[in-house]
Amino acid sequence: MRYSKFFLPTTKETPAEAEVISHQLLLRAGCIRKLTSGLYTYLPLGLMALQKVAAIVREEMNRAEAQELLMPMVQPADLWQESGRWKKYGPELLRFKDRHGRDYCLGPTHEEVITDIARRELQSYRQLPVNLYQIQTKFRDEIRPRFGLMRGREFVMKDAYSFDVDDEGASKSYEIMKNSYQRIFQRCGLSFRAVEADTGSIGGSYSHEFMVLADTGEDTLVICNDCDYAANVEKAAVVLPESGEKPGDPAPLHRVETPGMKKVDRVAEFLGVTPVDIIKTMVFLADGEPVAALVRGDRQVQEVKLKNLLGVSEVEPIADDEVWKLAKLPVGYMGPVEISIRLVADQEVMCMRNAVAGANEKGMHLTGVNPGRDFSPEQVGDLRQITPEDGCPVCGGKLSLTEGIEVGHIFKLGTNYSEALHATYQNKNGVDKPFVMGCYGIGVSRVVAAAIEQNHDANGIIFPLPLAPFQVLVLNLGLKNETISAAAEQLYSELRALGVEVLLDDRDERPGSKFKDADLIGIPYRATVGKTYEKEGMVELRLRVSGETVLLPFTEAADKIAAMIHEELRQLQDVKR
Amino acid sequence: MRYSKFFLPTTKETPAEAEVISHQLLLRAGCIRKLTSGLYTYLPLGLMALQKVAAIVREEMNRAEAQELLMPMVQPADLWQESGRWKKYGPELLRFKDRHGRDYCLGPTHEEVITDIARRELQSYRQLPVNLYQIQTKFRDEIRPRFGLMRGREFVMKDAYSFDVDDEGASKSYEIMKNSYQRIFQRCGLSFRAVEADTGSIGGSYSHEFMVLADTGEDTLVICNDCDYAANVEKAAVVLPESGEKPGDPAPLHRVETPGMKKVDRVAEFLGVTPVDIIKTMVFLADGEPVAALVRGDRQVQEVKLKNLLGVSEVEPIADDEVWKLAKLPVGYMGPVEISIRLVADQEVMCMRNAVAGANEKGMHLTGVNPGRDFSPEQVGDLRQITPEDGCPVCGGKLSLTEGIEVGHIFKLGTNYSEALHATYQNKNGVDKPFVMGCYGIGVSRVVAAAIEQNHDANGIIFPLPLAPFQVLVLNLGLKNETISAAAEQLYSELRALGVEVLLDDRDERPGSKFKDADLIGIPYRATVGKTYEKEGMVELRLRVSGETVLLPFTEAADKIAAMIHEELRQLQDVKR
Repeated sequence: MRYSKFFLPTTKETPAEAEVISHQLLLRAGCIRKLTSGLYTYLPLGLMALQKVAAIVREEMNRAEAQELLMPMVQPADLWQESGRWKKYGPELLRFKDRHGRDYCLGPTHEEVITDIARRELQSYRQLPVNLYQIQTKFRDEIRPRFGLMRGREFVMKDAYSFDVDDEGASKSYEIMKNSYQRIFQRCGLSFRAVEADTGSIGGSYSHEFMVLADTGEDTLVICNDCDYAANVEKAAVVLPESGEKPGDPAPLHRVETPGMKKVDRVAEFLGVTPVDIIKTMVFLADGEPVAALVRGDRQVQEVKLKNLLGVSEVEPIADDEVWKLAKLPVGYMGPVEISIRLVADQEVMCMRNAVAGANEKGMHLTGVNPGRDFSPEQVGDLRQITPEDGCPVCGGKLSLTEGIEVGHIFKLGTNYSEALHATYQNKNGVDKPFVMGCYGIGVSRVVAAAIEQNHDANGIIFPLPLAPFQVLVLNLGLKNETISAAAEQLYSELRALGVEVLLDDRDERPGSKFKDADLIGIPYRATVGKTYEKEGMVELRLRVSGETVLLPFTEAADKIAAMIHEELRQLQDVKR
Repeated sequence: MRYSKFFLPTTKETPAEAEVISHQLLLRAGCIRKLTSGLYTYLPLGLMALQKVAAIVREEMNRAEAQELLMPMVQPADLWQESGRWKKYGPELLRFKDRHGRDYCLGPTHEEVITDIARRELQSYRQLPVNLYQIQTKFRDEIRPRFGLMRGREFVMKDAYSFDVDDEGASKSYEIMKNSYQRIFQRCGLSFRAVEADTGSIGGSYSHEFMVLADTGEDTLVICNDCDYAANVEKAAVVLPESGEKPGDPAPLHRVETPGMKKVDRVAEFLGVTPVDIIKTMVFLADGEPVAALVRGDRQVQEVKLKNLLGVSEVEPIADDEVWKLAKLPVGYMGPVEISIRLVADQEVMCMRNAVAGANEKGMHLTGVNPGRDFSPEQVGDLRQITPEDGCPVCGGKLSLTEGIEVGHIFKLGTNYSEALHATYQNKNGVDKPFVMGCYGIGVSRVVAAAIEQNHDANGIIFPLPLAPFQVLVLNLGLKNETISAAAEQLYSELRALGVEVLLDDRDERPGSKFKDADLIGIPYRATVGKTYEKEGMVELRLRVSGETVLLPFTEAADKIAAMIHEELRQLQDVKR
């Protein structure tokens, strides 16, 4: 491709609307343009990167013997009513009526449609297992679309669905997909981790997220330094150290005045204790009902864990100024003793002795609070966010936290959908059994954004080679110099003849502007043909990722560059994680 | 791919819902499944054919230096309001509100979005010409979706848009696309014609349709046997033979009783004339208003021509029992003399002398009717459908009619959209000028259906090689015979190693059933390994299209088959129309 003819509108200014770096750089590098909130056009450069991801995903899915199909984007309501999600899904499911007044939605995911296909086309255990996938545009009506391709409304997704005869088969299908995902993200040239994850609104019993590691990630991961364990903090189980007796004897309950002391730290200081001695009471709305959750004073409530313990579909914190209105409790002085609303507690709280807690009266706290004697939560469980000080739940080893961007999510669904839709096969004995299902998603467009979040510098994008729209950018720095121009054209032709994907910058622009655009659009290899060629017959090859520069004799340049690219891609294909 | 593991649910029964052959065969051959009215899932076999078409389209668009991008499917109403199509488009445009109550539609086409991109990103004549395209899922809320992939609601389309500085440039872009389309359908292995066409709701000044020739086509084409002329009958101009004086003298107007004579033939017989002597009066609703159109008694009104002459956006015939209600005219006895509603006439009618026409009174006709003297239409023009008896409008040569299926449509749009959206570039003199645009569509999914309408027999699909999901089907007819099975497996491996796309029928089924499925799914080459191999070391190769069978020595089979495929594809690539 010739840059002079390529539709690649780069910009110098950082767009005000873009909060995250991938969004900024995708706009500046002419990869995407906003149509309206959460809707983006992929310009040619951005689409090329997207197609690179899609091609890798397709190859690896086919290698794993999944079969590609393509389901409609527009889905009839009746299937969603059968599964029960027409009511449950919430406003992210965009619903509308057709010209005949029938209800439809734009597919955010396709469990219903694929289960409908399975129940009609798969009759016998002999036809199983089957894994069917598609690469398709999805729509979720996000309340606040943001971050460009990271959280858009329309996005490209690969979604696969496996059908097995039993749980053992489903586990096998799950493992095949887990390995396939490892290969996919490996081949994309990304640094990533598979982590145990919450199953969320899809449902199911077991799931892993694939996280691209990046400081700017929305998710926090906990990784064990000593074993393979890795999990989303939403999911990471806290294991309490085994303890014998509680220390000391229970003291009597005392009311103490703590005027203006609303924060844990101030209460602790005022009463001469530490946050470890305080029971923190937080109020949430769980499916619209207020619930009080207890954690130790130095801990944070993990809302996803709370949601799962309560068995509700949505948990949200209540703003301070709403607490009184909704729960009739005084913010800063709430506590578990004689509390008027539903009460749940983190497991750790139940081991505390002679704790401090709010007295549910403004300016008052209680000391000598003892679980069991003074209050009994309706439910007790693992409610708090894990910390690096906690031990690994598997091996007890040292944990560390890191940030990540979710790009893939695989689920063991079990029989949730097949039972709801009466999707069955006949087993060997002629008995109808529900399919045991799994589902497996990759945010294809999100991978592009995540790759940039992980790989960029102050000057622009640094595309990993396997996702790069072009592998090599040839700069012609002597457009009016016949010798230089002829050499640049020759290098361009030679590389293309070797199967290399090349962009030739043949624009009538100053070298400085060409270098700036080169850095911005992030093509991995930059080959400059300029004065050094004219004087010494050398091409300057620069690696975008390291800034490393080597001089190559012109006659060898194409072969050497092609060999380097070939070797880099081979290594990503070969190494197995 | 092994058939035993391939998700390919074929059926013996012809589905009752399917009216046309492509729909029947796509269902029976396990290519598609209906989700609900006008919405289909492409199963793996069908998707493979779709992807073959898409790949050819993409290659040829890139060869023509069009650049691929991807626009959102969901489009905001405001752009459609700017172009004026939010009101004009009618109920095929599916409209809905998002969670914030903002108006959107599902894109049936993308003129507005692309023009918005152009006005923001293309500032100077130096950036032109540009041709941008996408391959994408579109939605049209058809009132009566039918014929499977032929007229679905959701479908895959390639749409391209060109931007030029002037009409001359736009004509060049148009010609490039016209050639590109010739190459595309040629490479698809289809018999087709490019014909002059009506521009319809897209607007614009000039257009061609690409028609796959098939007896079952919805469109009728007129083709000159003596020159290059070809047109849709909707568009094909009727040229009247030059005549001198009208024959004979005008007779006086007479009222005659014609009780119960409503049809042209009966009136003619009764009055001793021929249909050529009768003026036929037809009533239509044109944008809601009744209009009477006159043609000679042996002619048909061409509604698209009528619509264009009237300059309205919709013309529909009025049912007999509605005519009185809407136009106060008696069906069967309508005529132009003293008619109470708007009147237009085909040019030929104006040359008639002493004609017969209805008297606008039940049971009565007029004789001696003379245009000009007895009635004066508001508009006169070419209103009737062309016939094989008419001469070619270009060379006067002999015409023939044939049926076709529209698979592509290219338009010279001019400045309609760029003016409506104020989309301009700066010319050499610094003056802002509107882009001169063209748009170019291919119904990618429709091509698959049209290919089948054109290529099938009583036993099933006959895929043209370039669109075939697999090029070769290897039948293992001795699943329990080690010699035969080993040979079938070897042939399968050898063909794959040669880059051939192969399906190996390794199912535990009777030969008869395998042959039936082979014919049904229409893979072009079928290689049978069975008894003939065991006895004589021969593979039986059968061409699906001709039924021709040859025996190949096993040791040469893979090479020979690969060579035949290679040669067939090469020929399609080479020959230029």
